Amino acid sequence: MKNFNKILLLLLFSCFALPTFAQKASWIWYPGDFDIYMSNVMQNRRTERGSFFPVFWKMDSHYVLVDFHKEFSLTQPEEVKLFVEGTYNVKIDGQAVSGFPKTVNIPAGKHKLSLKVYSQGAVPAIFVQGKTVVSDETWLTTFEDKEWIDQSGKVSDKSGTTFVTAGSWNLTDPTKLPSQFKLPTKPLQAVSKKKAEAGALYDFGRETFGFIKLHGLKGKGRASLYYGESPEEALSTDKCETLDHLDIDLAQKKDSIMPLSKAFRYVNYQANGGVSVDSVSMLYEYAPVTERGSFKSSDTELNKIYDVAKYTFHLNTREFFIDGIKRDRWVWSGDAYQSYLMNYYSFFDAPTVKRTLLAQRGKDPVTAHINTIMDYSFYWFLGIYDYYKFTGDQKFVQDIYPRMQSLMTYIDGRKNKNGLLEWMPGDWIFIDWADKLSKDGEVSFEQLLYARSLETMALCAKLANDTDGAARYDKQAKELKAKIFELYWNQSKNALVHSRINDKQTDNVTRYANMFGIFFDYFTPEQKLGVKNNVLLNDKVAKITTPYMRFYELEALCAMGEQSYVLKEMKNYWGGMLKLGATSFWEEYNPDKKGVEHLEMYGRPYGKSLCHAWGASPIYLLGKYYLGVSPVTAGYETYTIEPSLGGLEWMEGKVPTANGDISVYMNKKEIKVGSAVGTGTLKIKSKSKPAVKGAEVKEISKGTYEIKIEKGKDYLVNYNPPTP
Amino acid sequence: MKNFNKILLLLLFSCFALPTFAQKASWIWYPGDFDIYMSNVMQNRRTERGSFFPVFWKMDSHYVLVDFHKEFSLTQPEEVKLFVEGTYNVKIDGQAVSGFPKTVNIPAGKHKLSLKVYSQGAVPAIFVQGKTVVSDETWLTTFEDKEWIDQSGKVSDKSGTTFVTAGSWNLTDPTKLPSQFKLPTKPLQAVSKKKAEAGALYDFGRETFGFIKLHGLKGKGRASLYYGESPEEALSTDKCETLDHLDIDLAQKKDSIMPLSKAFRYVNYQANGGVSVDSVSMLYEYAPVTERGSFKSSDTELNKIYDVAKYTFHLNTREFFIDGIKRDRWVWSGDAYQSYLMNYYSFFDAPTVKRTLLAQRGKDPVTAHINTIMDYSFYWFLGIYDYYKFTGDQKFVQDIYPRMQSLMTYIDGRKNKNGLLEWMPGDWIFIDWADKLSKDGEVSFEQLLYARSLETMALCAKLANDTDGAARYDKQAKELKAKIFELYWNQSKNALVHSRINDKQTDNVTRYANMFGIFFDYFTPEQKLGVKNNVLLNDKVAKITTPYMRFYELEALCAMGEQSYVLKEMKNYWGGMLKLGATSFWEEYNPDKKGVEHLEMYGRPYGKSLCHAWGASPIYLLGKYYLGVSPVTAGYETYTIEPSLGGLEWMEGKVPTANGDISVYMNKKEIKVGSAVGTGTLKIKSKSKPAVKGAEVKEISKGTYEIKIEKGKDYLVNYNPPTP
Repeated sequence: MKNFNKILLLLLFSCFALPTFAQKASWIWYPGDFDIYMSNVMQNRRTERGSFFPVFWKMDSHYVLVDFHKEFSLTQPEEVKLFVEGTYNVKIDGQAVSGFPKTVNIPAGKHKLSLKVYSQGAVPAIFVQGKTVVSDETWLTTFEDKEWIDQSGKVSDKSGTTFVTAGSWNLTDPTKLPSQFKLPTKPLQAVSKKKAEAGALYDFGRETFGFIKLHGLKGKGRASLYYGESPEEALSTDKCETLDHLDIDLAQKKDSIMPLSKAFRYVNYQANGGVSVDSVSMLYEYAPVTERGSFKSSDTELNKIYDVAKYTFHLNTREFFIDGIKRDRWVWSGDAYQSYLMNYYSFFDAPTVKRTLLAQRGKDPVTAHINTIMDYSFYWFLGIYDYYKFTGDQKFVQDIYPRMQSLMTYIDGRKNKNGLLEWMPGDWIFIDWADKLSKDGEVSFEQLLYARSLETMALCAKLANDTDGAARYDKQAKELKAKIFELYWNQSKNALVHSRINDKQTDNVTRYANMFGIFFDYFTPEQKLGVKNNVLLNDKVAKITTPYMRFYELEALCAMGEQSYVLKEMKNYWGGMLKLGATSFWEEYNPDKKGVEHLEMYGRPYGKSLCHAWGASPIYLLGKYYLGVSPVTAGYETYTIEPSLGGLEWMEGKVPTANGDISVYMNKKEIKVGSAVGTGTLKIKSKSKPAVKGAEVKEISKGTYEIKIEKGKDYLVNYNPPTP
Repeated sequence: MKNFNKILLLLLFSCFALPTFAQKASWIWYPGDFDIYMSNVMQNRRTERGSFFPVFWKMDSHYVLVDFHKEFSLTQPEEVKLFVEGTYNVKIDGQAVSGFPKTVNIPAGKHKLSLKVYSQGAVPAIFVQGKTVVSDETWLTTFEDKEWIDQSGKVSDKSGTTFVTAGSWNLTDPTKLPSQFKLPTKPLQAVSKKKAEAGALYDFGRETFGFIKLHGLKGKGRASLYYGESPEEALSTDKCETLDHLDIDLAQKKDSIMPLSKAFRYVNYQANGGVSVDSVSMLYEYAPVTERGSFKSSDTELNKIYDVAKYTFHLNTREFFIDGIKRDRWVWSGDAYQSYLMNYYSFFDAPTVKRTLLAQRGKDPVTAHINTIMDYSFYWFLGIYDYYKFTGDQKFVQDIYPRMQSLMTYIDGRKNKNGLLEWMPGDWIFIDWADKLSKDGEVSFEQLLYARSLETMALCAKLANDTDGAARYDKQAKELKAKIFELYWNQSKNALVHSRINDKQTDNVTRYANMFGIFFDYFTPEQKLGVKNNVLLNDKVAKITTPYMRFYELEALCAMGEQSYVLKEMKNYWGGMLKLGATSFWEEYNPDKKGVEHLEMYGRPYGKSLCHAWGASPIYLLGKYYLGVSPVTAGYETYTIEPSLGGLEWMEGKVPTANGDISVYMNKKEIKVGSAVGTGTLKIKSKSKPAVKGAEVKEISKGTYEIKIEKGKDYLVNYNPPTP
């Protein structure tokens, strides 16, 4: 009887548990549509000294007329609530219900519920809430249902409509229309206030983002806010990058919140006429992501670098991953690609990656490269494959594969007579912000990214079950790769040259193609060594001054085991910004500059962004190359831990994954690891065979050992590090 | 001195006159965008018994971010007023003006004024009003300006942006945003009222369209309106096609206008509870076009047919040319193609043709045929060429040519192994509403339209200066035409067969391909005669029951000089509808049906539209084949008048053109013609040489004479008609 009761309890539990699970409804739409819509909203929030400053590439739009449907098998009739953004109709088994019903009753049995929604200004979206009938990503949707009838009224039986599964965010409140979506805010106070002219300069203590709130505003005249990432900028009323003017006529005191969020540490409040204000505060606006990754070490400066990098990255993680919070606030593909990688070692917020990838790509037809930049199209492909590698989310790859194909078709259509890419009208060849960087002719860097993108296409084609495509892209990638080495490798320079002009190699060697060649693993061991010594560690090759390309440069060095060198570089470069008082990392940093020179860019005294996502790369480098954690097969089913102190006394930290964290502690005697996911391989260099309880230690080459890490167990390894 | 004064006056006059001309500003947008937007608005007004009933093909959207600019050379500074739909910025010579200015001052000299506008819900549009600086179709616009800067702030000098000239309607009121556009209305009263159940049946005297207005509505409960094109429909509260329910709770009397316009002659007002109404009237909604074409003859029935056809056509001419006012209210390409032709002989409203063509085509990518129907894609091409022929508007052809190319590329991509088109998933092969009409295999009708569309592409390519395209399309057209005759012409049947299945001709002969072959002029004289006798005048070949295909059937007969036969057919067919009390012409008419059978279609008792644009074809036939006026070269630069009484005692009428009317009077002795445009050739069959003052008469073949008609002159010709 005891057992019987247990079973009964279990049964009861299942009965209650199942509907609870199924009831999780969310707003749904045509996949990618809300992402595109919301990125339009976000990217159009940029202003420059009060002028609206939109993007210069094509902004796409959602489908304005969308059909949603799903078949349900009900054991009993169900009352279903309907919430819709747009004008709509409802059909049960193809029969229209009159008007715009807020609830429908679905009889027991197998039935199809359809809603068709028209909305021009916001994304057609539905929220369906019954006991078991709920809207989620299993619904099917289309923008052309092609359901015509003949003159007898018979519905066409062979329409050939393409249905795809719906898209969603985590919008689970039926009373809040998707178009009303806003990031959360919380009130923050300034840490100090100083008189400045007729007003005051407020300091919020560190770089921040949000809406300024003016308390007790009163009088008639103009109140102005001048924002600054530096005090110099905020005080420069005629040169600061962002500002707000309010023309008011208030007899009674009133609080006023600025309509557009801004980036600042300092705000300079000025008013003319009889305008007065009681106080100035802010509403800090933030993405509600969880800081799951962590890093701490014996080096307090490095710890500070890590913390400021994470804060920088959090500020730039918004509805999407943006470039910088002060100025562009746009979704740049090259910047976002790095954000994805940082994200995998910090928030592991997969939805923001998906949203950003969808927003960047927009809709067909492709009329330009992503952000108009050739390299940025390629980073987009690379971002998708990384996403799959870190998350194991094959469905997303399948969903986005058609849009990958059309972008690649566009690119393939722009090859020159040599089968290579070079500038064509409409292209921006970016590479990096660097003086005198030639973009002429066939630049090797672009061909390298092209080859890697074709490899990505081949891999994703397989995941999307496009066997022919996989073979075709694979062949194309191999041919291009062979061509790159045939045309750009210079044996005497031991490097890939920068470009070809008029079918001939130029003399120029730059770091770009060479460092990418390393972590793409395109070189032979000899080539790699040649590139390391002749390019990466060669001061005669033009230096990199942006954190953007520092990211890849340091990654390439880490990939070759240069953690000690890179640690010093990190401390110099990011530590250098901290020494100048940075509370977030910058768009560009040149140690040779002095004072306010650091604030200048684009020919404007405060043009530089002092909080730029690409400045946060230590998050990634420390997670991947010091804690040493990275996936081997998709979604961390298998992974490696190859920790490296790089000269530190000790370090500890966590690397997040979709299904839990991997933790690593290391000092010069011990390594502790634990993991909630997959099967790991801990790789250690040790002078003697490491000792560990509950696991086998294999020597795979002289002085290098491997230990298998199973999930749910903790390992303590004693080892004997080789003399540096 | 006198002369000097004259010159001075002239100069003064020019000074004042020029600005007057230049000041004509209108709202402008990216070409096609407002057309697409407004067609979404219009087509989403369809309801079926209170349910929203949208289209089943892809609805496109405007570009949400659009840049406008124009360079001006000003002799003196100018204050310019700006009206914008959307969020915007303003730049003078590339320099942004802060905020959202309502006026800007442009200095004297050469300056560039730019506005960049973002609007998701409505079309980004501007209205610029200065003395000489005004917005019109000479402004340039783009949806991707690609204007990036480098790190020094320098704007890219080689962006490769495609600019196109702006689009506009005749929206010239700056205070009325384009999104607020509405057709005009005027109040109309019912002609009779009859008690019906608890309410009343209102008769508005004839088919009409608009918003029902309930005067003095009061009480609590539900008021319902059941609309009917017939009294049977209005009285059938459970089967009428359209209705309105109002749930009210009004203590005081209030007038209420229904939100959606409807088609009806009868309205059945019913109310429950304590709801009362003083009276019921309507607001007639109409397109403000001018009825320029006219026709009158010795046959009063024919005159009635012409008048009712013109009224039918006017009702179906709205923001766009729609199919029918009761039910679809959609822009169907096959229907619109006929409307274009009728329009050239009635309103000659070129803008409505352009709008409809733009709305149908929408945006790239092409994911389906127009309206999902294969034949309808082809009518779209044909419509563009006709538009050019009648209006001479080469600019429009150039503007739309890229969208013609992408649609043709889509179609070319769907050829089968034989280079022919047959059904593929997603296609609807329509041809006609006809029982047992086979759509299987390779249908000859579709290939014929395909060939004609390729010819159109070749012609438009030339107009758009695409020489290569012209040659390519011309070759493709010739090859397909040859193939059609090789594969479908059956010598023993003296006709094109209906289709091929499994690479073999079917036995089936239908009228469709054969009658199109005639007015496409694809046949040899012998083939033509064979087709006429073996198909068109052969009762064994399945009859046509829709006015839609009657249009082409009668046109083919007219093209072969069968005006007398066609006149009888018109009187039988359209006269037949009039005898049944029609006040507008129907979607379908089968003389064999009885009573309410005439109202039924699509398996619904009142499914048929009793006011369908394609029912109005007598307008076209009478203008083109009786008055006999048609353009030879584009825009009536040259044209022919080949009048034919077809058994009438006399007829007279006007045919409109872009630059004035052509008038024709004819009886059995005299022909009078006059024209405001071009150079005409009057062709007359006469037993003896006709006599005319002020013009030469040439005999071009035995009994056929030509007289050259110059514009601005009136001609009276005495002739001697051959015995019929």
